[in-house]
Amino acid sequence: MKVAGKYYRTIWMDSETGLVSMIDQNALPFAFNIFVSNTYHDTCHAIVTMITRGAGAIGAAAGFAMAQAFLEGFQGEKETRRQGEERGAKKDKTTRRQEEEGNTEYSNEQLAFFKNARKEIEATRSTARNLFYATERVYNSGLISVENAVREAQLLADENIADAKQIGEYGSKLIQNGSRILTHCNAGWLGFVDYGSALAPLYIAKEQGKEFFVYADETRPRNQGARLTAWELQNESIPHKIVPDNAGAYLMSKGMIDFVIVGADRIAANGDTANKIGTFEKAIIAKEFGIPFYVAVPFSTIDFSLTDGSQIPIEERSEDEVLTYSGPDPEGVMHTIRMASPGSHAINPAFDVTPARFITGFITEKGIIKPIELGTYKS
Amino acid sequence: MKVAGKYYRTIWMDSETGLVSMIDQNALPFAFNIFVSNTYHDTCHAIVTMITRGAGAIGAAAGFAMAQAFLEGFQGEKETRRQGEERGAKKDKTTRRQEEEGNTEYSNEQLAFFKNARKEIEATRSTARNLFYATERVYNSGLISVENAVREAQLLADENIADAKQIGEYGSKLIQNGSRILTHCNAGWLGFVDYGSALAPLYIAKEQGKEFFVYADETRPRNQGARLTAWELQNESIPHKIVPDNAGAYLMSKGMIDFVIVGADRIAANGDTANKIGTFEKAIIAKEFGIPFYVAVPFSTIDFSLTDGSQIPIEERSEDEVLTYSGPDPEGVMHTIRMASPGSHAINPAFDVTPARFITGFITEKGIIKPIELGTYKS
Repeated sequence: MKVAGKYYRTIWMDSETGLVSMIDQNALPFAFNIFVSNTYHDTCHAIVTMITRGAGAIGAAAGFAMAQAFLEGFQGEKETRRQGEERGAKKDKTTRRQEEEGNTEYSNEQLAFFKNARKEIEATRSTARNLFYATERVYNSGLISVENAVREAQLLADENIADAKQIGEYGSKLIQNGSRILTHCNAGWLGFVDYGSALAPLYIAKEQGKEFFVYADETRPRNQGARLTAWELQNESIPHKIVPDNAGAYLMSKGMIDFVIVGADRIAANGDTANKIGTFEKAIIAKEFGIPFYVAVPFSTIDFSLTDGSQIPIEERSEDEVLTYSGPDPEGVMHTIRMASPGSHAINPAFDVTPARFITGFITEKGIIKPIELGTYKS
Repeated sequence: MKVAGKYYRTIWMDSETGLVSMIDQNALPFAFNIFVSNTYHDTCHAIVTMITRGAGAIGAAAGFAMAQAFLEGFQGEKETRRQGEERGAKKDKTTRRQEEEGNTEYSNEQLAFFKNARKEIEATRSTARNLFYATERVYNSGLISVENAVREAQLLADENIADAKQIGEYGSKLIQNGSRILTHCNAGWLGFVDYGSALAPLYIAKEQGKEFFVYADETRPRNQGARLTAWELQNESIPHKIVPDNAGAYLMSKGMIDFVIVGADRIAANGDTANKIGTFEKAIIAKEFGIPFYVAVPFSTIDFSLTDGSQIPIEERSEDEVLTYSGPDPEGVMHTIRMASPGSHAINPAFDVTPARFITGFITEKGIIKPIELGTYKS
């Protein structure tokens, strides 16, 4: 999407240098900064600290991190090779064979380095399916050659955009003039590489000239709705208001919501859906009021290896995210303040699992699919 | 309750001076200050700005404010009379008759002053039943004499404590060793004159030596749970954790909650219950998981003039309560920071109405009553 007239992806990698650039989502909505990561380790840190976040963006970041690891592990050998070539030396037998077969023979140390890097990347966020999906794909490609790792990571990011756009096309059919849509957390373009999942239908509908209104749950504790979804909607001039999470039943009971769209971090084979904490609450309430509840995701979010949601690991994050909050004072100076009574502690489960029976449909790149139909798509 | 070894009511009035003192609930939990109001107008301001808050405390404050208005409106005449007495002048016929009959003849200006004061008091918070209940009682008493107004206001505060203690006695029977209780907002002693409604059973159970655990919803946007309930529980050494409102369904789905207790601001004759925004969400979710949902209230919260909850007016408060937040930085310096994306707006309904069918029982000073039994108590 464009910011101040310039097109951005949420996260991107320079294939030559291996530098990964990303929109700093901790600085938003108060500043628009690009964070640049030099190493796979820095990219892991950016995922853990949520400089980049959201199911799709985490997937892309993990893919890039894995590619960075291959670039880093290969760097020594590549440097040696390049210096040799510059000196006019003939390519040695191994290098020539690698290039012919597209296959790299790594040393045991390199293989151990890649394996450890993969573990480190996979340990950043435990719930996000796309993280494991992307890491695995880039790792397997990287075992063939470093170039393959880089190509695969870029392909994953491109697929992420293509999927998101297709989700937007299918989902936009749900939106009519006058529709009032409730969102939870941020599954917008910031949460993907572009377009988003839950917000993609809104952006496509907006392009189609439809007029509608969005209620964006603020989504405590990190307020991704109030900070990121609101910022995205403002950036795209889509009329919206921020909603305290507690007001969901109030809005629905007053007939102010036509349907709900959320994203997801991991979906089990039976359709049980892990997403930002509070999603399950909204799904229960929507069902109570007979309001359709959609989950917008690319198929890469579905973990067909899990029979149901009880097997999805739920990340527990630091209580500090509940007890403190950061933002600017009226003069624009940033402060971190205490939200809660000193001496009290908090729980902070980052996700919950919504059973499939609460979900009206999955908006995917293959169309809008009912939970019971999910199994037929298992590849 | 005691704070640092000293007994406090949440709010109290000196009958002689008419000064109303209250624990400043905006300063809590970061500072324990007593706010003193000299006039009924200042007391109104304290209600509007939530220096004092909570169904019961608002009722007491409104009663005191009404008494202050009578004292203020009567001040001129009283001053004149006292000066007359000091000069040894005989009591005039009117004054003597007033004292004999306990009846005051007010001037038309005074009557207009009292009436306007009542209007101003009743305009402070639209949802709270106790506010109207208390204002009416003190107003009617004040029409007889100023002394009656003061006496009635003090009586209301005393009744508030007696009711709350009785609610605690009945409610404590629900609490067993090992009980895990979810609360929403603050209906503790800070929300009353003492003991509280929703938290009174906890305090009595604690006195009885029971061991149990409390999950306190933080209760956005004003975080009365994270700020006040957590502070109260800490003050009484009751084990607890603060819960992001979004985590309710997560906790219940994991079997971590045995029952829910909340307070209420107004209850219609059929049992429909207005309480802090988010209460309705929790009630729907509790029902989904078959978890008992109790509302703890004195009968003065029940508005038998309303047949159902649709007639309860819901206060809409400033969006600033959602968009900004105040608290101390690590050095203890207070800041008000922006929580949400600049340029975006928010909705802020302060209450929602939970239909009676979601409520297991009302914990009252007359016992634990099912919603369908409420009608039989109509006086």
